Amino acid sequence: MQKHYYKLVVEYDGTAYVGWQSQKNGKSVQEHIEAALSKIFKESTRIIGSGRTDSGVHALGQVASFYTTLVISPQNLQRALNSLLPHTIVIRSVKKMPHEFHALRAAKGKFYRYIILNDSLFPALMQNRAWFVTHDLDLKAIRQAARYLVGRHDFTSFMGAGSSVKDAIRIINSLRVTTSRKDFFGIGKPSSKGKYIIFTFKGEGFVKNQIRNIVGTLIDVGRGKRAATDIPQILQARSRPEAGRMAPARGLYLVKVIY
Amino acid sequence: MQKHYYKLVVEYDGTAYVGWQSQKNGKSVQEHIEAALSKIFKESTRIIGSGRTDSGVHALGQVASFYTTLVISPQNLQRALNSLLPHTIVIRSVKKMPHEFHALRAAKGKFYRYIILNDSLFPALMQNRAWFVTHDLDLKAIRQAARYLVGRHDFTSFMGAGSSVKDAIRIINSLRVTTSRKDFFGIGKPSSKGKYIIFTFKGEGFVKNQIRNIVGTLIDVGRGKRAATDIPQILQARSRPEAGRMAPARGLYLVKVIY
Repeated sequence: MQKHYYKLVVEYDGTAYVGWQSQKNGKSVQEHIEAALSKIFKESTRIIGSGRTDSGVHALGQVASFYTTLVISPQNLQRALNSLLPHTIVIRSVKKMPHEFHALRAAKGKFYRYIILNDSLFPALMQNRAWFVTHDLDLKAIRQAARYLVGRHDFTSFMGAGSSVKDAIRIINSLRVTTSRKDFFGIGKPSSKGKYIIFTFKGEGFVKNQIRNIVGTLIDVGRGKRAATDIPQILQARSRPEAGRMAPARGLYLVKVIY
Repeated sequence: MQKHYYKLVVEYDGTAYVGWQSQKNGKSVQEHIEAALSKIFKESTRIIGSGRTDSGVHALGQVASFYTTLVISPQNLQRALNSLLPHTIVIRSVKKMPHEFHALRAAKGKFYRYIILNDSLFPALMQNRAWFVTHDLDLKAIRQAARYLVGRHDFTSFMGAGSSVKDAIRIINSLRVTTSRKDFFGIGKPSSKGKYIIFTFKGEGFVKNQIRNIVGTLIDVGRGKRAATDIPQILQARSRPEAGRMAPARGLYLVKVIY
């Protein structure tokens, strides 16, 4: 029987899920999509994601792959999936791939965004969409610290416990730190003294909790709890306690996977 | 004992509440604020809102008033309230008023915004923030219909059942219909064919469900289910069934109350 390969682009609000990947302690995004596919195809169907996302982390463009021996048009499949999935998981696109496609192995790079609201009040309508930081932050120091992290490094100091990877050597192609007073039709409007701080990461791949641990450490730098020039030593130490605390999941977005 | 009058500006995500005003069937925004004030002042404290909002309706600038014989600085009161309230209710400002202040009686006008996403897909991260309409909409017809509603009219045809007001004669000062492709750092981004349609209402006061019933009727016009030129007859009929169905609460925002 011929295998038909599909690529799904998935957006989700991670608030209510245990993360992308199936776990024992609750419902995952993966499980929901697999349940919907199994219902559509009337046979058990497994999908592969481009990588895990933690509980509470959001995705604008997570990618998943699967194959089936059954025939269905991408358009009908997308419609069927979106009608079965909860409203907080949306299939943005379905593409039938000409050849075998493996969302994890074929991934060449990823864009992540981390959103901080640096203000004195958190907007009621922005819960679970950003990390709320009230402290005064030294953006210059944050940017200086960020520059030390770009490039090829051993990120052991920024890797969450319980990871099974062979090594923590990864490349961060770019790490941009921008500010914005953007809001959404008045929702999430910063106060006159407030602003959003957006971290945009591009890399080939990331170790467990890498971005959240980096952002947490950069905010420690911004608060003056440590110096930007500490970063090279933190990297070199290859020891998780050397870096700062982990930023919360709710500010992190998997924006795009590059193939 | 001297009475001290306060004005609160309140933002809330209405999703989880039965509305502004206390009801038997669940928690209201008013109840939460009164409970917090009663805890702070150690005596039962009642507040008055500028008006009700339905369950699921949001507010960026609801206004409430209360008085107390106790002395507390606005800044400390704001801090204490926000530390006691759920994260989906935020006190944006507290002002001590020089004279008696009654948020309902003193209100001179209100701005409301209704947000529709007109697209083929609803963003996973925008649940409960807009009304999702997939149909093709004739904006010119919507705008033509909207113009008939501006001014002084008897809005009985757009008034929800169970209202106890003396009459439904109200003035809509302006009703603007704008479109936007605005998003929030990629969250809520419309597709290449999609857009937001924003209705901005300004009026001295509105009858029950008036805005939601108007928006629902305007969308019927946009879908071609009825003509823009039907609006004068609908108004004249003074009969709720003559107008269209009610738009859902989740797209409606009380933006500002004018005093």
